[in-house]
Amino acid sequence: MNKLFSVTFEPSGRTVKVSTGTPLAYAASRAGFAMNTPCGGAGTCGKCVVQIRSGNCLPTPEEIKTFDENRIRAGFRLACQTRVTESLVVEIPDSSLLQSGQKILTADTGEPVTVSPRIRKTAVTLPAPSQDDARSDLDRLLTAIDAPSLSLTALQHLPRALRLEAYSVTAVSSDGLLLDVEPGNTTARAFGLAFDIGSTTLVGTLVDLFSGRDVAVSSRINPQTSFGDDVLTRILKCREESEGLAILRNAVLSAVNGIIDDLCEQAGIENGYIYEAAFAGNSTMQQIFCGCDPSPLGELPFVPVFTAPLRLRAADLDLAIHPEGRVFIFPQLGGFVGGDTVSGIIATRLDRIGKPALLVDIGTNGEIALAHDGRIIATSVAAGPAFEGARIVNGMRASSGAIENVSIDETVKIHIIGETKAAGICGTGLIDAAAELLRNGILDTTGRMVDPDEAPACLPDAVRARIVSIHGENHFILATREESATGDPLLLFQKDIRELQLANGAIRAGIQILLKQFGLAEADLAAVLLAGAFGNYIRKANALRIGMLPAVPPERIHFVGNAASFGAKRALLADEEKDYAGTVTRKSRHVDLSLDPEFMNEFSSAMMFPES
Amino acid sequence: MNKLFSVTFEPSGRTVKVSTGTPLAYAASRAGFAMNTPCGGAGTCGKCVVQIRSGNCLPTPEEIKTFDENRIRAGFRLACQTRVTESLVVEIPDSSLLQSGQKILTADTGEPVTVSPRIRKTAVTLPAPSQDDARSDLDRLLTAIDAPSLSLTALQHLPRALRLEAYSVTAVSSDGLLLDVEPGNTTARAFGLAFDIGSTTLVGTLVDLFSGRDVAVSSRINPQTSFGDDVLTRILKCREESEGLAILRNAVLSAVNGIIDDLCEQAGIENGYIYEAAFAGNSTMQQIFCGCDPSPLGELPFVPVFTAPLRLRAADLDLAIHPEGRVFIFPQLGGFVGGDTVSGIIATRLDRIGKPALLVDIGTNGEIALAHDGRIIATSVAAGPAFEGARIVNGMRASSGAIENVSIDETVKIHIIGETKAAGICGTGLIDAAAELLRNGILDTTGRMVDPDEAPACLPDAVRARIVSIHGENHFILATREESATGDPLLLFQKDIRELQLANGAIRAGIQILLKQFGLAEADLAAVLLAGAFGNYIRKANALRIGMLPAVPPERIHFVGNAASFGAKRALLADEEKDYAGTVTRKSRHVDLSLDPEFMNEFSSAMMFPES
Repeated sequence: MNKLFSVTFEPSGRTVKVSTGTPLAYAASRAGFAMNTPCGGAGTCGKCVVQIRSGNCLPTPEEIKTFDENRIRAGFRLACQTRVTESLVVEIPDSSLLQSGQKILTADTGEPVTVSPRIRKTAVTLPAPSQDDARSDLDRLLTAIDAPSLSLTALQHLPRALRLEAYSVTAVSSDGLLLDVEPGNTTARAFGLAFDIGSTTLVGTLVDLFSGRDVAVSSRINPQTSFGDDVLTRILKCREESEGLAILRNAVLSAVNGIIDDLCEQAGIENGYIYEAAFAGNSTMQQIFCGCDPSPLGELPFVPVFTAPLRLRAADLDLAIHPEGRVFIFPQLGGFVGGDTVSGIIATRLDRIGKPALLVDIGTNGEIALAHDGRIIATSVAAGPAFEGARIVNGMRASSGAIENVSIDETVKIHIIGETKAAGICGTGLIDAAAELLRNGILDTTGRMVDPDEAPACLPDAVRARIVSIHGENHFILATREESATGDPLLLFQKDIRELQLANGAIRAGIQILLKQFGLAEADLAAVLLAGAFGNYIRKANALRIGMLPAVPPERIHFVGNAASFGAKRALLADEEKDYAGTVTRKSRHVDLSLDPEFMNEFSSAMMFPES
Repeated sequence: MNKLFSVTFEPSGRTVKVSTGTPLAYAASRAGFAMNTPCGGAGTCGKCVVQIRSGNCLPTPEEIKTFDENRIRAGFRLACQTRVTESLVVEIPDSSLLQSGQKILTADTGEPVTVSPRIRKTAVTLPAPSQDDARSDLDRLLTAIDAPSLSLTALQHLPRALRLEAYSVTAVSSDGLLLDVEPGNTTARAFGLAFDIGSTTLVGTLVDLFSGRDVAVSSRINPQTSFGDDVLTRILKCREESEGLAILRNAVLSAVNGIIDDLCEQAGIENGYIYEAAFAGNSTMQQIFCGCDPSPLGELPFVPVFTAPLRLRAADLDLAIHPEGRVFIFPQLGGFVGGDTVSGIIATRLDRIGKPALLVDIGTNGEIALAHDGRIIATSVAAGPAFEGARIVNGMRASSGAIENVSIDETVKIHIIGETKAAGICGTGLIDAAAELLRNGILDTTGRMVDPDEAPACLPDAVRARIVSIHGENHFILATREESATGDPLLLFQKDIRELQLANGAIRAGIQILLKQFGLAEADLAAVLLAGAFGNYIRKANALRIGMLPAVPPERIHFVGNAASFGAKRALLADEEKDYAGTVTRKSRHVDLSLDPEFMNEFSSAMMFPES
């Protein structure tokens, strides 16, 4: 087993556990920070400076080039270079986090968040009952607390709470509803949860409701993936099996509750002190999470059960927080464009940038939103899970053993997560590989891998030798026998390129359709915001090379990190953000590409890679 | 096993199952009817006329005396005389039910009930989705239904309900909350439950919410009795065992849910069509039912958790009706005077009679309420379960084999329920026996059973021979060897009389204290209302003889049946009745007898039986 180390980031105190060899930048990302890495993690731009406060990291050659001896000794490192080999406490200066001169929110820290929680905690000490004062427990409490209504939980806890600390109690209320009565003074303890429920990944952030500070972050793979890696297979399961919905719901619920356990353990709190939660996910995930059959999303005209925001009660969802906890489910735009897109829009203030701005969230599904002139249109494309490693012969997620960076010059250089032997290739490695193969003429714009003798004459022999033919198709050796975990060369296959073309083309075509609907050209885009954990590690130049992103100057492309999580946190902490989410939904229009005759045209041309 | 027969009463259609030999009057009582039986069931007054519509009953000599041959052939019988020996359909004319010229409600039928349910059902047919109309399911519904808020259940049921009957659905709402969406048109189906949760007996009535008609009645013994027969032992269990409350709550809940199953089976409905419930019980029972620890009721100053009415949700109580069903828990007066007393007051309009009126509910606890001049005072006394057969050596409940009627003239005449051998003595039999022993000088006013030679000279020898001495105490043979199920004579023991004196004295003393507080004498009482299933079968003359009731002319004493159940039904069917319950609570004062120095005095003198 790979040993796990904890990395705590200051000043927020957020902690994650990572395996040995994980770059600090990855650890920071898992903790919800988007580091500033314009060089794409090459160690050359010196923007992702961090300071090791506790624990040791041997400096890399790039770091020794970047920092003088004193700063090296003081623990300054580059997050993209430094690898975790023991438990660390690391400080991230604000300057190392993504920030935008254009006031575009680019990370889930740094940007001020309105903290105006609905939860109120009031500590009171009441007189004990006597023969002259045998009022009921509730009447006694209501002399000191104004609560027009109360929960059964509060009533059930009341007699014990009153008598445990000599009639000193703390009342917990939300909008006039008394949620609970706790013994003693617990006014300092009030937590909330912001959740991003993705098709593949679930990310939970535990937030202090009164300070707005993040307390802990934890993520897990959505266990629904074992029933199919995209939303359509899960909808099909609900349509075809009478217990399908219950099985999928239980799967995601148990993982969410597991994350809550992790968060409570990290933070050293009890889950009963979590009184609010906000959930953002795509429409299939949100509906399954709420126990609403998503079957109608599986057939024309792709009808969701709801689009308005939901305000639910934790116990009704079997959520492992306070049973009376208030749960906010993000509004949805329609079809497959769900609450995560709305959350991303409020996280980034997409419609307040004032110029045409595009938000692209590349996950198992690709969601695309375009804001222009006070209006928003949004769509989703079945990007497929290629970027998450699925359907790629040697594909894998971005974890230890994954080739995550490929560059080709005299030879083929790969970087493997965890500094170990290569076990497969992850999404960024796939994009890098395709871009480099294109640049070197090994891949043509149709996506065909050329024969060794067809490749440009200038191609170094060592690289040319990597092209291998099997059954009339060409493939490319990404990792040699020596670099590979199996001892056999690790290949990128022709069919892997085809999978990439499908995913890439779908995203590109979706963007084109939206631009057309607003009568805009690619160059009109003032900002292209890349959301999602994956988006953070894409090298802009390579994504532009393969045509995944609109052809805009690279400086207009911004990584915005896990915008869905950050939008959920905003909604968690202030009603005005919940209202903003509602406003976004009402002023947005969902574009159903399946009904758009132009989409198939755009899609087939977008399948082609751009000319260099 | 004793075979069970079903008896259906017309015109209400209520059905109960009873064992062979049960008098029809008992079956009627179990179905919630209070028959008019001024002769105390002797078959002499001819007031409890019923007509057998289906099934056979051989006429008794009393019936042949009462009815001519044509009427006998037409099925006319006396409910107090006729025994069930097969399944029957029986019509009860209104004239045979208890009714009062003084406009005092005396039974849970006959009195008009306000029917103004909170539940609304609206059937709509919506257009199916199309490519031009891909609105969410919820938006589609809300074009036709006005619902400011909705339950998660409704949302979860929505997609299937819409598609099951071609977008024809019925919306179920209550006060602006959409509770559910049902496929097709179900507007005719809406039911409610009125429950009396007694320490010993649980009675549930299923009511059609739109017509107000009773649909079915069912009752069970409260399984908490296996943990102790009075509320104090149950409070003690909650105080002393960490799981005590949960055990007791689960016991009563499973019995309540079992009754709901029975009711649904009787009525042939699904429990999902039950949308409302109203529960009335004493304060310990109501608190345990709601999962509120009753421990503070077990010590001075006897503090209840709540007195205000509660409005809860069925799922939060694990009640087996519609999960979003609205549940009303009656307000409580204080100490041990709970919702059943409030329910009894609204059932009988006690405070609207306009003259001093007393309501006495004799159960395991005795609750007493006195209304005078627009005010109400109420108290409870630990009557103990003697009247329900407990703590009496040969005591038993009023079921097959119980001696339920005792009279003494030349010899001792007993009547045994089910026309079988005597297995024990029930509450009414105990009162009868004590009254008859007093009348015949076998018992003196201190409650001592005299020696055979001390008894009056006029006592027939056959009766005198029934007095037997054991260890210096005298006891009385109620059933001879031949009449007894065991083959041994069945005795009423001296200590049984002492138990009766305690119970009797507590009730009498409670009444005296309340009268004193209002400065009233017994003779000022215009009405004495006896509530509870037991109260219906007491022979007034005997209850007056032993001093259980205030010395008023017998015509001022009225049997009001299960007033708690009827009050619960009133509250179930109209918000104004729920409000009336709240008003009653606010204008009532709870009198804690444990703090009253006069009570012990009153109690010791009330222990004595009155002079003849």
